[in-house]
Amino acid sequence: MPKNILILNGPNLNMLGKREPGIYGSKTLADIESDCRTEAQRLGYEIDFRQSNLEGELVTWIQQAPDLAAGLVINPAGYGHTSIAMHDALRLLSMPIVEVHLSNIHAREEFRHKTMVAPVATGMICGFGPIGYTLALQALAARL
Amino acid sequence: MPKNILILNGPNLNMLGKREPGIYGSKTLADIESDCRTEAQRLGYEIDFRQSNLEGELVTWIQQAPDLAAGLVINPAGYGHTSIAMHDALRLLSMPIVEVHLSNIHAREEFRHKTMVAPVATGMICGFGPIGYTLALQALAARL
Amino acid sequence: MPKNILILNGPNLNMLGKREPGIYGSKTLADIESDCRTEAQRLGYEIDFRQSNLEGELVTWIQQAPDLAAGLVINPAGYGHTSIAMHDALRLLSMPIVEVHLSNIHAREEFRHKTMVAPVATGMICGFGPIGYTLALQALAARL
Amino acid sequence: MPKNILILNGPNLNMLGKREPGIYGSKTLADIESDCRTEAQRLGYEIDFRQSNLEGELVTWIQQAPDLAAGLVINPAGYGHTSIAMHDALRLLSMPIVEVHLSNIHAREEFRHKTMVAPVATGMICGFGPIGYTLALQALAARL
Amino acid sequence: MPKNILILNGPNLNMLGKREPGIYGSKTLADIESDCRTEAQRLGYEIDFRQSNLEGELVTWIQQAPDLAAGLVINPAGYGHTSIAMHDALRLLSMPIVEVHLSNIHAREEFRHKTMVAPVATGMICGFGPIGYTLALQALAARL
Amino acid sequence: MPKNILILNGPNLNMLGKREPGIYGSKTLADIESDCRTEAQRLGYEIDFRQSNLEGELVTWIQQAPDLAAGLVINPAGYGHTSIAMHDALRLLSMPIVEVHLSNIHAREEFRHKTMVAPVATGMICGFGPIGYTLALQALAARL
Amino acid sequence: MPKNILILNGPNLNMLGKREPGIYGSKTLADIESDCRTEAQRLGYEIDFRQSNLEGELVTWIQQAPDLAAGLVINPAGYGHTSIAMHDALRLLSMPIVEVHLSNIHAREEFRHKTMVAPVATGMICGFGPIGYTLALQALAARL
Amino acid sequence: MPKNILILNGPNLNMLGKREPGIYGSKTLADIESDCRTEAQRLGYEIDFRQSNLEGELVTWIQQAPDLAAGLVINPAGYGHTSIAMHDALRLLSMPIVEVHLSNIHAREEFRHKTMVAPVATGMICGFGPIGYTLALQALAARL
Amino acid sequence: MPKNILILNGPNLNMLGKREPGIYGSKTLADIESDCRTEAQRLGYEIDFRQSNLEGELVTWIQQAPDLAAGLVINPAGYGHTSIAMHDALRLLSMPIVEVHLSNIHAREEFRHKTMVAPVATGMICGFGPIGYTLALQALAARL
Amino acid sequence: MPKNILILNGPNLNMLGKREPGIYGSKTLADIESDCRTEAQRLGYEIDFRQSNLEGELVTWIQQAPDLAAGLVINPAGYGHTSIAMHDALRLLSMPIVEVHLSNIHAREEFRHKTMVAPVATGMICGFGPIGYTLALQALAARL
Amino acid sequence: MPKNILILNGPNLNMLGKREPGIYGSKTLADIESDCRTEAQRLGYEIDFRQSNLEGELVTWIQQAPDLAAGLVINPAGYGHTSIAMHDALRLLSMPIVEVHLSNIHAREEFRHKTMVAPVATGMICGFGPIGYTLALQALAARL
Amino acid sequence: MPKNILILNGPNLNMLGKREPGIYGSKTLADIESDCRTEAQRLGYEIDFRQSNLEGELVTWIQQAPDLAAGLVINPAGYGHTSIAMHDALRLLSMPIVEVHLSNIHAREEFRHKTMVAPVATGMICGFGPIGYTLALQALAARL
Repeated sequence: MPKNILILNGPNLNMLGKREPGIYGSKTLADIESDCRTEAQRLGYEIDFRQSNLEGELVTWIQQAPDLAAGLVINPAGYGHTSIAMHDALRLLSMPIVEVHLSNIHAREEFRHKTMVAPVATGMICGFGPIGYTLALQALAARL
Repeated sequence: MPKNILILNGPNLNMLGKREPGIYGSKTLADIESDCRTEAQRLGYEIDFRQSNLEGELVTWIQQAPDLAAGLVINPAGYGHTSIAMHDALRLLSMPIVEVHLSNIHAREEFRHKTMVAPVATGMICGFGPIGYTLALQALAARL
Repeated sequence: MPKNILILNGPNLNMLGKREPGIYGSKTLADIESDCRTEAQRLGYEIDFRQSNLEGELVTWIQQAPDLAAGLVINPAGYGHTSIAMHDALRLLSMPIVEVHLSNIHAREEFRHKTMVAPVATGMICGFGPIGYTLALQALAARL
Repeated sequence: MPKNILILNGPNLNMLGKREPGIYGSKTLADIESDCRTEAQRLGYEIDFRQSNLEGELVTWIQQAPDLAAGLVINPAGYGHTSIAMHDALRLLSMPIVEVHLSNIHAREEFRHKTMVAPVATGMICGFGPIGYTLALQALAARL
Repeated sequence: MPKNILILNGPNLNMLGKREPGIYGSKTLADIESDCRTEAQRLGYEIDFRQSNLEGELVTWIQQAPDLAAGLVINPAGYGHTSIAMHDALRLLSMPIVEVHLSNIHAREEFRHKTMVAPVATGMICGFGPIGYTLALQALAARL
Repeated sequence: MPKNILILNGPNLNMLGKREPGIYGSKTLADIESDCRTEAQRLGYEIDFRQSNLEGELVTWIQQAPDLAAGLVINPAGYGHTSIAMHDALRLLSMPIVEVHLSNIHAREEFRHKTMVAPVATGMICGFGPIGYTLALQALAARL
Repeated sequence: MPKNILILNGPNLNMLGKREPGIYGSKTLADIESDCRTEAQRLGYEIDFRQSNLEGELVTWIQQAPDLAAGLVINPAGYGHTSIAMHDALRLLSMPIVEVHLSNIHAREEFRHKTMVAPVATGMICGFGPIGYTLALQALAARL
Repeated sequence: MPKNILILNGPNLNMLGKREPGIYGSKTLADIESDCRTEAQRLGYEIDFRQSNLEGELVTWIQQAPDLAAGLVINPAGYGHTSIAMHDALRLLSMPIVEVHLSNIHAREEFRHKTMVAPVATGMICGFGPIGYTLALQALAARL
Repeated sequence: MPKNILILNGPNLNMLGKREPGIYGSKTLADIESDCRTEAQRLGYEIDFRQSNLEGELVTWIQQAPDLAAGLVINPAGYGHTSIAMHDALRLLSMPIVEVHLSNIHAREEFRHKTMVAPVATGMICGFGPIGYTLALQALAARL
Repeated sequence: MPKNILILNGPNLNMLGKREPGIYGSKTLADIESDCRTEAQRLGYEIDFRQSNLEGELVTWIQQAPDLAAGLVINPAGYGHTSIAMHDALRLLSMPIVEVHLSNIHAREEFRHKTMVAPVATGMICGFGPIGYTLALQALAARL
Repeated sequence: MPKNILILNGPNLNMLGKREPGIYGSKTLADIESDCRTEAQRLGYEIDFRQSNLEGELVTWIQQAPDLAAGLVINPAGYGHTSIAMHDALRLLSMPIVEVHLSNIHAREEFRHKTMVAPVATGMICGFGPIGYTLALQALAARL
Repeated sequence: MPKNILILNGPNLNMLGKREPGIYGSKTLADIESDCRTEAQRLGYEIDFRQSNLEGELVTWIQQAPDLAAGLVINPAGYGHTSIAMHDALRLLSMPIVEVHLSNIHAREEFRHKTMVAPVATGMICGFGPIGYTLALQALAARL
């Protein structure tokens, strides 16, 4: 399924821009999806953009990635710090993978410093807010 | 000192492309500097690109950043995991700061997982090789 | 949605009273729901009482809380000790939150001593069995 | 000694309401005692309400509990996180015991997360301010 | 529900044999199901063989086990190392339980050495690939 | 030395069935040897069954394994949790190795959760009592 | 003050024999004092036998020891595991010191395994109940 | 109560100069009090100098500090490394606080490296013997 | 085998009194055996006194204890801090067991503070040199 | 070189008073040098006041101290928490050494609580801002 | 016994050169013994070269060292990382001791980084294969 | 650059023989250089012998090693226990590397037990004083 990029979003990201805009910014997840589509098209790709609060549904989507896309951008949110299941699903992929976090996870609580996703990803981008997604698309495009 | 971006490189980065190209790629640090200059100009900036093996010299350059640039990109290499002195120097700055690592530090030895730079930076990019520098410039430009 | 209190129950609580009544008491979750309804009405509230074995479904219900209720009582059961996703969802709420555990988590195994819910809740009640729910409702009412 | 409840208060609780009311509220310990007396009488009990800054005096009062009361409410304050002596005294009692903390100890410094009292108590209530005492009396009454 | 054995499979096991056969072998989960059915029939049992990527669904199936079977074989995969919810559900069962892992979890990464399932299971078998399932059925049959 | 399987037993296993049959069962080590011989013959093998309380004698037998057998079953008992010498001897072997424990080591004291044998074994079976030995023989036979 | 031995007893030891005789035995602290007096006289000494629930009072008595006795037996009970103040007071003494515990502290909870008293004592005796005191007197007499 | 400074001394400091002068020097606590009085008068202050072996009495004196003095010097001795009660009492004060230790606590046993007092004090002075008290008075005077 | 006490000595105790008498005293192990025999006879017992540098031989002797004696005194020396095999052998005994150490293990290196023997012994005596053995015999006699 | 005191300042201290005066005060390092000179002269000493961002240059200056001065005041700033090289250089000196920190290191991040300098210094002063330097000079003078 | 050097070899070293020569080299222990004899004679010494898989036998040989030799070379292999018994035996010797490891223990698994032998040895040599033994003999000769 | 060996010395080694000869011996670094030159010539090599207190200068010299020599001897002194920058520079080399320490690092403070150099070196020699350098040259020559 060439020319497609799968973008997965973990728990609570559906709430973006809806509460506490002072902290998390006023962009909604739909706004980010729109930014990603524009940037992807500039780079010659289509995107498949999804969100789930269910760890198991994210695992399933990662398993389906080879049928859906040539590369994967994933913001695992809270599950990224503990999920061995997502780690195992990602390690089965041979496509490039970019982990994204809106906030700078190393500048927050201790329990967010560790990531189970990065060790099986190509690289990681954190701390730049929504722009991190478009940087991730560029990093992915450079690999494809 | 508007329209300037300071790019600092830590120990051993002067060896890039000179040994073990199979692992670290064949690009030299001069090649990366050239890529950065091109990308910065596209974004409307000049760059000041430096490397040192001396922790103290890096600390001094960070101190001078407000006189040299509007933003800072730093690849602290080996010092980034332990240097409280760099941490203290960075925390005195009010400009945006992006930490870059060529390799994916979370996929390497345990002692590279911790960073003393990220907690006082805007964000972090790792694992994408030289392209990480140009992504960092974009992230910085978006903040300026 | 004033005058409503959302009461969420995590994994395995649907089994209450069905097995090992010697240990967990003979009250079922339906009995507890009934006790809560009576107590809430005495305090001038309605309740919305739910249970799920799915961490992601609990996250979604927490996200919906502002549309459903003025306060939240949550017995996170096994997920409360590890779930960063629930922690993140709860921290977005501005309503009062009470964590309840039927058993005294500090008198059980080491891995139950830590809670990811309490740090983002108003307070916590544990060890009193079903009566903990009605105490939680009172604590909540006092805050509303 | 039926129909009596002993309420013990640890170090610094005698300062309640006297300093920093913005943080700790304006209720004094005498106000809390008065609230407890009212609630206890509603439940059919008398109270014996004491405070001490001395760990050993608290230990002695716990030892005397069987001669003084049918149940025990204890806010151990700072001693509750480290005192093996109080732990040992409490474990000798066969009456129901409720630990109370005004603040949510799980949302404060790491060294307050652990409690030496809860493992030998019936249950614990924290984070609700003075109302925690009256909830504790109810929990106790339900057991007696 | 005598003469039935429930066999539960956790996240990513649905991918067996589909990718990286060099590492994980070429047997699919359907092949393993077939092997189990044959062995179970030899031992005088029927099997109910299920897989899910959802932790909560696995918890629910464990809860239903007494209505479905006389014994339980469970390969918890990635959830087995962290899931308190599965631990709690399993501890409610009075039937024999066998934990199976295809790979030798003690010869892999540190985070796979710990299991939350084994402490509430009868025993554990790991490292023998698909044959581990048929050994588990024998161990179970010997207990029933 | 084809068609032979070496079965080694560590310290205290010579006491099986002699004391505390309520806990450890009434089977003696001789009974287990007899069960193993029967099962091995069914599978087409002879066995060489030994026990020692001396760590160094176990190390020596492991070193001699290539001259004695085509596969190894080892119940290291108490030495299995700490012995680097046994770990080093086992890692020199190229034959399949199965670690067996009568009890479920993950359900006992913390110091029994770690095994120095499993990381250099093919797999591990624990918790099923004497039947674990015959399961081990099957697992071994499947590899040979 | 030759020919005198000071025997200090920490928190809760005044409760000996009064509650839970099934666990702690039926001897009271007065019984132990009497046993000690008899044994001391047999060895040619007088005793000064004291108990306190106050850590500070125990510290003061230790400070006074050189004016009171030629040797010290101390059962620090719960304070012995954490008290730096007692440790500091004891280290100022030049007389022989014997630590006694009625129960075997190494067979109880983890937090009782460490002792702040033993490192500054001559030796320690634990696990033998009241007889530990008379053994301590003999050990002391042998040193004097 | 302006122009007064409260100086509190913890357990065992009453023994200064009385035993082991080779280690602790020959100055008694009365000598230090006298030095403090002289220095305070030079700076324009009176002092209130106290010592106790009781943690709770020290807590009480800290609580009374606002009625007694404009600033506090405290040598918590052994209680300073563990006392949450003193920590809590000190954090209620708004006056400047100086922690003093006669010895260099960082050059002694591991358990003396941590201080519960310093985090709620203005600053700390250690290692200079009795002169540390007069330096503390100067530091305090500079703040007042 | 009534009226007999088995006394086991671990590695290096055969060297007692032979080297460094300044540190370890001038008594040899034979002297201690002689002291034990005298004391045992005074108490009405015979002794069986053994020493080995082999962990496995000590394990074997512990296993034989029920055939040899009514009680056990054991100085496990260096093996006592790590040996799970000795721990397992001791836990099979139903006779009283006393652990003895010549030196005060709590006043020495960190790695000697932990004992694997004490948790399965009746009690422990350490720090009194050879006299510890005769105290142990008394403690044992009191239990028999 | 009598009558001289060497004052060394570590990384980032050259920035004092230049940025964030709200936090670090408005005094520059030159102001502090001036204060030190005045105080030293009052005490009868000259000072040699230096700053470097280079860990190695600080090590060299410490090595030269015996040729430069009779005593040493050192504010190691960020290097003080990790530098074994400075620790080793300082331990070679036989002159008195005072460690100074402007801020209260025990009230800041965990990684600042440990100091590698204090264990080889005479004493330490922290938390009083620039006045800490003049207190250090007094402490030094008292030792010389 | 002048002019003699004792060379002790721990578990599994008897297997050198017999298996996996690709990893451990093709030299046997007999070859190393021969190299040692030649080198020792060049230096004017005789050697006594032994190997054992039994920890206790190694302990016994260390005890006998003063009767056998003037210096000791020891390759403790797997026992060197955990054996307190060997540590205790070595600390009784007053002769020079050199620890040798064929492989670089700091470049292998975490559990091999710690050595119980080196703290009581003169020095340590690791990572150079068989040549480490002849270097050790030189180091020893230089001390004798 | 055949026939040359680079010998690097870290911080404080320039002080050798200048202070505390009782501890570190009376040999200066120049004496060691002279010993190394003699031994190297015996083995057919020239040496390039350097010392620096600057971590960064050592990193640079390591980087230049391939242009300067065929093998490297390095005594990293204090930087060897923490320097990731030196670790990274060393891992880029393909020549043999020997780490040397004058003292036995495993017999000193805990923080000296870990080495960041050894994991990327061929081997390590410690504890023999200056002779360690000539042993290192032999080990290197054997590899070249």
